[in-house]
Amino acid sequence: MGVGDVSKRILLGRKLRSSQLGETLLPKRIALPVFASDALSSVAYAPDEVFIMLSVAGASAYVWSWKIAIAVAVVMAAVIASYRQTVHAYPSGGGDYEVATVNLGARAGTTVASALLVDYMLTVAVSISSGANYASAAIPALRGHEALFAVALVLVLTAMNLRGIREAGTAFAIPTYAFMTAILIMIVVGFIRMVAGDLPDVESAKYTIEPTSGMSGSLGGIALVFLLARAFSSGSAALTGVEAISNGVPAFRRPKSKNAATTLALLAMIAITMMIGVIVLANEMGLRMVDPSQQHRLLLNGHPLSDAHTQNATIAQIAKSVFDGFSPGFYIVVTVTGIILVLAANTAFNGFPVLGSILARDGYAPRALGSRGDRLAYSNGILFLAVMAIVLIVAFDAQTTRLIQLYIVGVFVSFNLSQLGMIRHWTRVLKTERDPVVRRRMARSRVINTIGLTLTAVVLVVVLVTKFLAGAWITILAMIFFYYMMRRVRRHYDRVAAELAADADDAVMPTRVHAIVLVSKLHKPTLRALAFAQATRPNTLEAVTVSVDDKATARLLEEWDERHFPMPLKVLHSPYRELVRPVVDYASAIRKAYPRGVVAVYIPEYVVGRWWEQFLHNQTALRLKGRLLFTPGVMVTSVPYQLRSSELRARELNDQYWVAPGVRGRTNYRGQR
Amino acid sequence: MGVGDVSKRILLGRKLRSSQLGETLLPKRIALPVFASDALSSVAYAPDEVFIMLSVAGASAYVWSWKIAIAVAVVMAAVIASYRQTVHAYPSGGGDYEVATVNLGARAGTTVASALLVDYMLTVAVSISSGANYASAAIPALRGHEALFAVALVLVLTAMNLRGIREAGTAFAIPTYAFMTAILIMIVVGFIRMVAGDLPDVESAKYTIEPTSGMSGSLGGIALVFLLARAFSSGSAALTGVEAISNGVPAFRRPKSKNAATTLALLAMIAITMMIGVIVLANEMGLRMVDPSQQHRLLLNGHPLSDAHTQNATIAQIAKSVFDGFSPGFYIVVTVTGIILVLAANTAFNGFPVLGSILARDGYAPRALGSRGDRLAYSNGILFLAVMAIVLIVAFDAQTTRLIQLYIVGVFVSFNLSQLGMIRHWTRVLKTERDPVVRRRMARSRVINTIGLTLTAVVLVVVLVTKFLAGAWITILAMIFFYYMMRRVRRHYDRVAAELAADADDAVMPTRVHAIVLVSKLHKPTLRALAFAQATRPNTLEAVTVSVDDKATARLLEEWDERHFPMPLKVLHSPYRELVRPVVDYASAIRKAYPRGVVAVYIPEYVVGRWWEQFLHNQTALRLKGRLLFTPGVMVTSVPYQLRSSELRARELNDQYWVAPGVRGRTNYRGQR
Repeated sequence: MGVGDVSKRILLGRKLRSSQLGETLLPKRIALPVFASDALSSVAYAPDEVFIMLSVAGASAYVWSWKIAIAVAVVMAAVIASYRQTVHAYPSGGGDYEVATVNLGARAGTTVASALLVDYMLTVAVSISSGANYASAAIPALRGHEALFAVALVLVLTAMNLRGIREAGTAFAIPTYAFMTAILIMIVVGFIRMVAGDLPDVESAKYTIEPTSGMSGSLGGIALVFLLARAFSSGSAALTGVEAISNGVPAFRRPKSKNAATTLALLAMIAITMMIGVIVLANEMGLRMVDPSQQHRLLLNGHPLSDAHTQNATIAQIAKSVFDGFSPGFYIVVTVTGIILVLAANTAFNGFPVLGSILARDGYAPRALGSRGDRLAYSNGILFLAVMAIVLIVAFDAQTTRLIQLYIVGVFVSFNLSQLGMIRHWTRVLKTERDPVVRRRMARSRVINTIGLTLTAVVLVVVLVTKFLAGAWITILAMIFFYYMMRRVRRHYDRVAAELAADADDAVMPTRVHAIVLVSKLHKPTLRALAFAQATRPNTLEAVTVSVDDKATARLLEEWDERHFPMPLKVLHSPYRELVRPVVDYASAIRKAYPRGVVAVYIPEYVVGRWWEQFLHNQTALRLKGRLLFTPGVMVTSVPYQLRSSELRARELNDQYWVAPGVRGRTNYRGQR
Repeated sequence: MGVGDVSKRILLGRKLRSSQLGETLLPKRIALPVFASDALSSVAYAPDEVFIMLSVAGASAYVWSWKIAIAVAVVMAAVIASYRQTVHAYPSGGGDYEVATVNLGARAGTTVASALLVDYMLTVAVSISSGANYASAAIPALRGHEALFAVALVLVLTAMNLRGIREAGTAFAIPTYAFMTAILIMIVVGFIRMVAGDLPDVESAKYTIEPTSGMSGSLGGIALVFLLARAFSSGSAALTGVEAISNGVPAFRRPKSKNAATTLALLAMIAITMMIGVIVLANEMGLRMVDPSQQHRLLLNGHPLSDAHTQNATIAQIAKSVFDGFSPGFYIVVTVTGIILVLAANTAFNGFPVLGSILARDGYAPRALGSRGDRLAYSNGILFLAVMAIVLIVAFDAQTTRLIQLYIVGVFVSFNLSQLGMIRHWTRVLKTERDPVVRRRMARSRVINTIGLTLTAVVLVVVLVTKFLAGAWITILAMIFFYYMMRRVRRHYDRVAAELAADADDAVMPTRVHAIVLVSKLHKPTLRALAFAQATRPNTLEAVTVSVDDKATARLLEEWDERHFPMPLKVLHSPYRELVRPVVDYASAIRKAYPRGVVAVYIPEYVVGRWWEQFLHNQTALRLKGRLLFTPGVMVTSVPYQLRSSELRARELNDQYWVAPGVRGRTNYRGQR
């Protein structure tokens, strides 16, 4: 439809030629915000989740928070060091999937892929939900409508990504840098005021936390370890997004691997600084935070708060107090944080479709995921991700604390298999490499990956144990589902390819053509079909009608006689008023009589242009064509007769390619050979 | 799908041959319950609505209730007398639509049709909603889920009607007679106890009603007249359903008209008796009833009731008190009333599809409404009615008191135009009739119809004035919409028929056939398409491929060369990765070069059997075929290659006809001439 297409072009921008693909490559300064915003943005919710977990044992457990932050930072440093090896060894952007497939086999690769697919969906859901909560903190009118707002954000992101990566990248650079600057300034100002002994408390410092029953008093032994492990698991959300860069290497400018590795190092430094800075400041400023569904555990002068109370996020609370002499500071920090969370979701919108297209190329996903849309983006993958993220957001009502329980599992499964693959990789290449300088570098890489594997394996176990019942089981089920689907899709493609492979003797020409023209009325479409069928000079030409109403058939036969056609009109009786069945049976019978011939069925069709006109005509032709496709030895010819209204539609279909000015829409064709 | 079809057969029963249509005709004793349950069932809610309307002025206004009942009874008697004339004059079942069309022209006919369509939808919505409320009175677990339950009931009715009218009729006879018996026994017992001075009060007699503000004190003048008019309008719901019999005449056994007229007279007697009996008893027993959304206006010892209170329906309250020594009496009355309401909805399920098929025959509705399904029922009409009724039920939350405000308008528009048509009819036939006996009978009929017109015209004005703002405007808008749609559909069919009408010189044979075989890969489907195309010996035969990827195209060309095909492979370049467009352009260009020839496009297709397999293959062939239909001078040939999984599906498609034992499923065909 014309209007639909115009709006598509307005939404997505003009079409891009395949040769314009190179233009969309990213320099480092753009790649950092595009791919690293996921990892950076987790500072907006990861500290909160650490404090919420610890609060189960009361505020006294907060002394552990900065130790947990350091533990997360250590794991992150190890993981990023490992991935710097990966981007050099595998610059093609297959990332963990490619590493696992090449070194550990197809099953490991498929496992990694299913883990990453699920984690991308969760990245969008978690980041957007957190972003919606920041937005509702700043705009009270949004309160209670966070899920709806989050869905709207996903839709906007989807549209932007369907436009293609380049515009998205440029648009994202400024707010990401603004976020980094704002948070780092906040941390620096906070530390200066701390050193000066001038650091104020945050707003929640006045509350006391009532521990969950059974957790009061000083904890010891297993209970404490489990609590710290859960807090660490939640804090590990900071680790996701690292693999996005290694999957996104092909989108970097050359030298791709080097640029990607540098970006990774930058990312690690910034993320760790922010994470530790925020947690230390929060502790110093007396932050108190509990699960949003248990706010009665926050006491003010011994009285519990009502559930209508809204806790502000850690960053928001710190910003409010640190910039207490400069109120725009608070608003700037909250705004840029909200924006960065949306951009974090965009990381998944970059990674997911690329992974989908790689899976499609390898036959593990429907081919439709592998085709680039008008704007060179993998449109189908983007749409699928959007739908799944919306489902998650709606199902969990955009509550970050609940979604975070599903998170991280996938990414750590992927980390582990990928590190294991890298170790195998280095072992294999070391077997043939003779240059001692190169060998030393490879051995060093293998050590780094081994450390990475050890740490990520521990984290995976911790995450699985602490989060399984709280939600991670959903993630695991989803991974198993995707794994099974991918294997099944691949089996299907393999079987079809084997069945379709051409042998030398496949091109046997049929000995005769038996043409059947279907007649329902003697109108122009029928006459045209008869004429076209005659023009192909078949060995036999018959006109056939299906009789569901004896009177109408008698009239038709009379008319037929009057016109003196050169062939008889055969009547197929259909006492069950079926139109499709008798034709299929008749065609099969002819084919049986002449097994080496082919039956050509000519179907007169008149073509209407407006969409609603379709409903006014019985769709028998369409059903008949669909059914005849299943009948061996038959070919089905539509002879269209275009009604005037269809010309309008045909013109609309042509105009689609002329909407964007300056684009040569027509295809040029030329003969070859 | 095999399973789908088996369940379809279980749900709907075995297919019926067209010649089995006669078997489904109804004797009077079955026709009464099938067609009259609508009019009879209104006693389940019409008295309630009369009392609710009057309660606006307090319980003192209830003295008017039996006068209103008598007024409704008088109108009903007049309307039924009129319709007895109609079924004799127009036995074909076109009913009001036919009467209006023949005597007043197509516009009047279309107006009647749109009015009836809307009223049928409302009949289903009102009856089922009321039925759901009775059910929730008996089964407390349903309370608060009435709308959901109502939707489920509509779905069950839909399935039953798709099975066809005959089984439905037999199944409906027993509960309808049970309902009539139960209500009449209740009335008789009530009157006996009244005469004996032993009549107890109903449960609500202990309440007092607070009049709506501004309506307290004794009413006079216009306010009273308007109040009584509104109550009368609501009571007139008893009048709907009468026309169902006149539209259903063809479903009666012979003599159709006489049987239909007798059924109408029976209906009038029973309905009037019930209506007046219930209202008189309710008054005697001190019933108090208000709008369910205003239950605070019910006072018990001066204190208002809470909105959580549930008022029982009038019939339920009467039954409870009348049978106070015999508790099953109450349950029997409530159960049969609930059932009769569902059966009332079934009247619409009988009338609506028949009207739809008549409209389809006359070109006012999509032809799909005119085709009988497997079970000889007009499946599409049934489904459409079900969808619309569900929309109404959900929109008005299954609240009878709100739905009733939309009701009756359509049926009275139809009554009026139909009576006017009948008067014209008698005037016309009187012009030519000479036999004095017949003339006297005709003149008498004309008098009856004139009285009918006068009364129904008054009622229509009353209904419009009193209900317009309360909801009737929705009905009127819907009627205008259907009216407009029907005219538009008819215009479309007229235009298409004119465009398609065959002239003598339409069968010009094309001078040459230019065949194009589309090639994407060199697999078996392509080889078969090439072979089939060659077999038709076209004047020119070309193989054509669309290049979206230069490397893949180069490989294809190499393979092509190796195979030594007798024709070249032409490459169409597509820088925008479009597959459909270049082919359409190329075909158009050839057609332009040879305007008197025809371009035959051969598309190799491989056919997969399982539904999910469809998603794994790009649907380019389908899109291409759709687009080529709009290109003049082109015929499109699908050359299918059946994969093994498709054989399974083909066998399933064949088996569909063999599920029901004892039915000859195969079509027998034989040549004629």
